[in-house]
Amino acid sequence: MVRIFFVIVSLNIGLFATAETLLVEKKKFDVGTYVTEYGETIENVVFGYETFGELNADRSNAILVPHFFSGTSHIAGKYDENDKAVGYWDNLIGPGKAVDTNKFFVIGVDSLSNINALQKNVYTTGPASINPDTNKPYGMRFPRLTAVDLVRVQKSLLDSLGVKKLYVSMGASGGAVQSMQWSATYPDSVGRVIAIVPPGLKIPEFESAMMELWLDPIKLDKNWKGGEYYESEFPKGGLVSSLKLMTLNGTGYRFAREKFPSTTLDPCDPKKDHCLQTERNFINFMTKRAEGKVDGIDPNSVITMVDTYQTFDITNDIGKIKAEFLFILCQDDRIFNPNDALNSISLLKVAKPNTKVHYFSSDIGHLGAIRDVDRFESSIRSFLND
Amino acid sequence: MVRIFFVIVSLNIGLFATAETLLVEKKKFDVGTYVTEYGETIENVVFGYETFGELNADRSNAILVPHFFSGTSHIAGKYDENDKAVGYWDNLIGPGKAVDTNKFFVIGVDSLSNINALQKNVYTTGPASINPDTNKPYGMRFPRLTAVDLVRVQKSLLDSLGVKKLYVSMGASGGAVQSMQWSATYPDSVGRVIAIVPPGLKIPEFESAMMELWLDPIKLDKNWKGGEYYESEFPKGGLVSSLKLMTLNGTGYRFAREKFPSTTLDPCDPKKDHCLQTERNFINFMTKRAEGKVDGIDPNSVITMVDTYQTFDITNDIGKIKAEFLFILCQDDRIFNPNDALNSISLLKVAKPNTKVHYFSSDIGHLGAIRDVDRFESSIRSFLND
Repeated sequence: MVRIFFVIVSLNIGLFATAETLLVEKKKFDVGTYVTEYGETIENVVFGYETFGELNADRSNAILVPHFFSGTSHIAGKYDENDKAVGYWDNLIGPGKAVDTNKFFVIGVDSLSNINALQKNVYTTGPASINPDTNKPYGMRFPRLTAVDLVRVQKSLLDSLGVKKLYVSMGASGGAVQSMQWSATYPDSVGRVIAIVPPGLKIPEFESAMMELWLDPIKLDKNWKGGEYYESEFPKGGLVSSLKLMTLNGTGYRFAREKFPSTTLDPCDPKKDHCLQTERNFINFMTKRAEGKVDGIDPNSVITMVDTYQTFDITNDIGKIKAEFLFILCQDDRIFNPNDALNSISLLKVAKPNTKVHYFSSDIGHLGAIRDVDRFESSIRSFLND
Repeated sequence: MVRIFFVIVSLNIGLFATAETLLVEKKKFDVGTYVTEYGETIENVVFGYETFGELNADRSNAILVPHFFSGTSHIAGKYDENDKAVGYWDNLIGPGKAVDTNKFFVIGVDSLSNINALQKNVYTTGPASINPDTNKPYGMRFPRLTAVDLVRVQKSLLDSLGVKKLYVSMGASGGAVQSMQWSATYPDSVGRVIAIVPPGLKIPEFESAMMELWLDPIKLDKNWKGGEYYESEFPKGGLVSSLKLMTLNGTGYRFAREKFPSTTLDPCDPKKDHCLQTERNFINFMTKRAEGKVDGIDPNSVITMVDTYQTFDITNDIGKIKAEFLFILCQDDRIFNPNDALNSISLLKVAKPNTKVHYFSSDIGHLGAIRDVDRFESSIRSFLND
């Protein structure tokens, strides 16, 4: 990890302020041959990761941060000082921040079957990877994965780094799923779990169905062809629609109302054929957001990733879980309903009365887990330093 | 209207109870040539209706009930005593019920562009109707309609029945939209409005976008072909997906959690190609519900109907509205958010301080407007008899 300093000129108050930006290197971890929970063998398994801070002498300060559905290992900093964007939790993770990289050794990881398989700086093994049996992408023949598989390969990385026990596993949404799965699969290897906007200890019925309906537009796109699109046109229209559904579910009424108080952008001529659905601000925002992401995303990986999350369920593992838990729930969450989450969290509370639950409110709902870090960072800071 | 009596044997208590069922006749109203708000001419316009109760001597007891998005004119009773189902608001409308047909003359109407265009007992003019210029269905060439058009043709029916002023216009969801539009288009012709699970005085951005995303699966279906499917295979897969999105939005987390406590129906073999999305109870429920409806629904009409509702906006008509309003909002509504509705209702309250708002809770959210009549019928009864 390299740190550089740069100068921000504050135009409002005429003063110079200094801010620190982290530069981070993306690395690739070779798992080699991996046998899935369902017993299938995958060759040449790899995934990406990046680290922040230093591992201490007794290797007790490691924090693992798996990512949410559309995320990557890039949790903070920049790869290059010219990068426009920083990692998604740059407000949370860094020197002196709530997840203090002066104190902790923080590891971001790409999941297997990362939907951003086609994005540069993402390393993952999934449906878009080459099947050595055919020398073509697996497509829908890629072995079915569970959350257990996602964390098992992460364990190999930690072993290689000499980390025997995580201080914390933490993540938002799908990252919370993986963080929680850690406590069930490796009860002795994780001390604490921070699960932000999680589904609870399993994916409830409503959430499972909602995610499955994200997939229909992809499957309906004539270019999907059962997943065999790698040598032809991608099902881009279906993927854009799918991403718009995710944004719709991931935001909320208040966000749309406050951000887009006027509605119509471009009234079309009602006498013209197909002039329907006049362009409106919020739908236009969702379309542009989707189109900006679509080229890095592998549609088949969206399908397999939803399946992987749908099968998540650690309610039967409560008895063996040793980690302490902090849950951070968004009251306005339209993907993982906080009451659904609490329903299964209360089971954990019976076994572990010290389980903590923090609530926050956000006009942007589920996505507040990334944008509105200021509303829960103090509870993370306390939990980490307890 | 004919009434028959039949006997229900209560197996539990061994007593006979009598219940009354209404028999109702579906009628067709010929509008003839109609010029839309946007200035386009449609020939041979028709729509269906049915009536309950009797118009009184001074013709002051008429209640108009336009329908919600997937509804029809069939608001109560049966067409035939062998019908399995009764009209959707049979619990609310009938002799002695909150909307008392011993007292009121109640009229259910099919909207123009009714999505159930292919269902027997539905009369409507829309994309599936024959375009006299081509002798083929209009498809997406059907003229663009607004909520104003929907109520204008209803006015012709009322004129023909001799009703100069409605006692009440009332409806749920899209039916509330039409009921409210009445007060803006014909301020002197409607005394009261009951708007149940309405969007407010216009369709907010979030709701507009949500409805538009219902359409993508239809448009992505290779059989849609820009709406030119009438002589070939229908875009059934896309329509099923669209209807599932409506059910997902129309119900809610609590419904899924309470009705489907166990999740998996049929664990598929993970080693099998395409074995993903193991069949689950809630998604299976939605699929079956959609497949049971799909044959009566015209996919193009779903598209045009969404557009019609998206353009609804009477916020600039508040000054001329004379009717008194009762709004009935569902706190758990995931289609028309009650706070979004209240946002524009408060504008009306400034002009009309007597505006009433009643809240109810329902595990089934938006659909509670049909299923959970018992939670708001007393406020309707009071408002009608005030």
